[in-house]
Amino acid sequence: MPSHKVIYDTDPGVDDAMALFFLHYHPDIELVGITTCHGNAPVEITTRNALYLKERFGIDAPVARGAAGPVTGDDAHHAAVVHGDNGLGEIELPAEIKTKAIDTPAHRFIIETVRKHPGEVTLLAVGRMTNLALALREDPEIAGLVRQVVVMGGAFGYRGHLGNVTPAAEANIHGDPHAADEMFAAAWPVTVIGLDVTHEVLMPQDYLRRLGEEAGEVGRFIWDITRFYENFYLDKGLAGISVHDASAAIYLVAPDLFETRSGPVRVVCEGLAFGQTIQRPAGIGFPPNDWDGRPSHAVCIEVKDQPLLDLYRQTLLRAV
Amino acid sequence: MPSHKVIYDTDPGVDDAMALFFLHYHPDIELVGITTCHGNAPVEITTRNALYLKERFGIDAPVARGAAGPVTGDDAHHAAVVHGDNGLGEIELPAEIKTKAIDTPAHRFIIETVRKHPGEVTLLAVGRMTNLALALREDPEIAGLVRQVVVMGGAFGYRGHLGNVTPAAEANIHGDPHAADEMFAAAWPVTVIGLDVTHEVLMPQDYLRRLGEEAGEVGRFIWDITRFYENFYLDKGLAGISVHDASAAIYLVAPDLFETRSGPVRVVCEGLAFGQTIQRPAGIGFPPNDWDGRPSHAVCIEVKDQPLLDLYRQTLLRAV
Repeated sequence: MPSHKVIYDTDPGVDDAMALFFLHYHPDIELVGITTCHGNAPVEITTRNALYLKERFGIDAPVARGAAGPVTGDDAHHAAVVHGDNGLGEIELPAEIKTKAIDTPAHRFIIETVRKHPGEVTLLAVGRMTNLALALREDPEIAGLVRQVVVMGGAFGYRGHLGNVTPAAEANIHGDPHAADEMFAAAWPVTVIGLDVTHEVLMPQDYLRRLGEEAGEVGRFIWDITRFYENFYLDKGLAGISVHDASAAIYLVAPDLFETRSGPVRVVCEGLAFGQTIQRPAGIGFPPNDWDGRPSHAVCIEVKDQPLLDLYRQTLLRAV
Repeated sequence: MPSHKVIYDTDPGVDDAMALFFLHYHPDIELVGITTCHGNAPVEITTRNALYLKERFGIDAPVARGAAGPVTGDDAHHAAVVHGDNGLGEIELPAEIKTKAIDTPAHRFIIETVRKHPGEVTLLAVGRMTNLALALREDPEIAGLVRQVVVMGGAFGYRGHLGNVTPAAEANIHGDPHAADEMFAAAWPVTVIGLDVTHEVLMPQDYLRRLGEEAGEVGRFIWDITRFYENFYLDKGLAGISVHDASAAIYLVAPDLFETRSGPVRVVCEGLAFGQTIQRPAGIGFPPNDWDGRPSHAVCIEVKDQPLLDLYRQTLLRAV
């Protein structure tokens, strides 16, 4: 029996789709909902993509459409250069998707689902944190009712650089830093999977080719959507694609593959470091500061990349 | 014949004194001036301490008094908790020092000395960057006339945390971030020795005791001034004192003990990350950003701690 009820808050997104397949095919995960958000592409496109993936791969979970832009009302920024204009690496997509999103907006779906299964629901958020912040604003009590929150976002410097959209900021957090700071302010247990670890997990082309040959339709689909995405990474001189969102999905069932550091996390919402995530590490004394009174969260600082890649592959092979 | 003409810009300070001894006793270094600054203590006290050290240890270099506070005119912040109220670990000091500072202010002394020896002078700055910024403001051409600038300051996250006065900021940079950002904006070759490496070099009590026994008067003096300073570190659960300023001094004669990363550096001058140093690493592509058009500098990311400690000890033993 699946042991994790998961709401997947996502902006598909090439690596979002790859993480979705892991959630769908892993036997210990029960995907109870997919909520969409602005991010890799506008929310119209990420919602369309979520519905397309649901329909094509027979995913039961309902899709609830979420926020179109940051909580501040500022313009949303997207990542067409990474994911293509259609968010799925410019593969051909049907003109219309029959499957529809539910009427409930994403943040309210989150509230209702968490209240329906108190203590049981994991929120896995791999896009901007807008939906989570909106849910907290409408119903702060959900912080005490979720099982855990797992976030792909941020960067804490462990791998020598702090961001991917600016030298200080990672895209998911940079895309709505105010929402992220509100999310980190809540007293729910958050684990952060940032660039510190996701840049340490690379899928080389050979890995993807083998997946394409061995994992049936979903394997071939992954091969297709990663052609554009892979070019982005190869152009940077990397030996493969970074495994961002799927690393966060894998954390749910294999937390032992990660090492974490505790301490409150804040997000810079102004100036040069806009969108940067900064943790005050536990056990180090500082004079009074802006992290005081904030709940401690876990930031992943180490990852066992090869076992993680093996687990992803083994799980996808279940699709065949 | 000494191969490095060095102006030592400093705020003694326990570890400042320890670095000064290295500069004084190392045969390849010609100390051509000591400029003082606010920082570990008010500039009246750091200047008094520099004069005391000059007098007591027979250091020829003139002492020029520098800035009392940040370039913005904001209040200066000091570190009595680390260095004691008298800046030298609360050891007993004479009521009056006979040796006097020269009349020239620090930043003008820097300009005059650099212009007198074009291409020859190394600026070693281990306090707030105020004097360097004031020198640049008065005579921007000195940027092209120094041999190099070596700075103890900042933190770039390599060792898992970014600051020591806040979770984002190191004390020397936090104490005058605007000055530091101006210093990094100049097209002179800067090498940064930050917490990323200085937190990796620890002098345990045994090392200091042995120095106290073997390095004569200066060894005993170091033992005395480090009693207070050591408590600060032991209270943090560390196994010894961090070697901040002396690591930067040692870089001058043994750069091969360090590994560096290139790229422009900016300093956050507002908000949550006030005082943080952020480098845009060379070779990584970003959209247009606030680092564009700024000169590349070298940030130390690795250090060979044991050879560094050995070199410090060997150099101090020359005092006997």
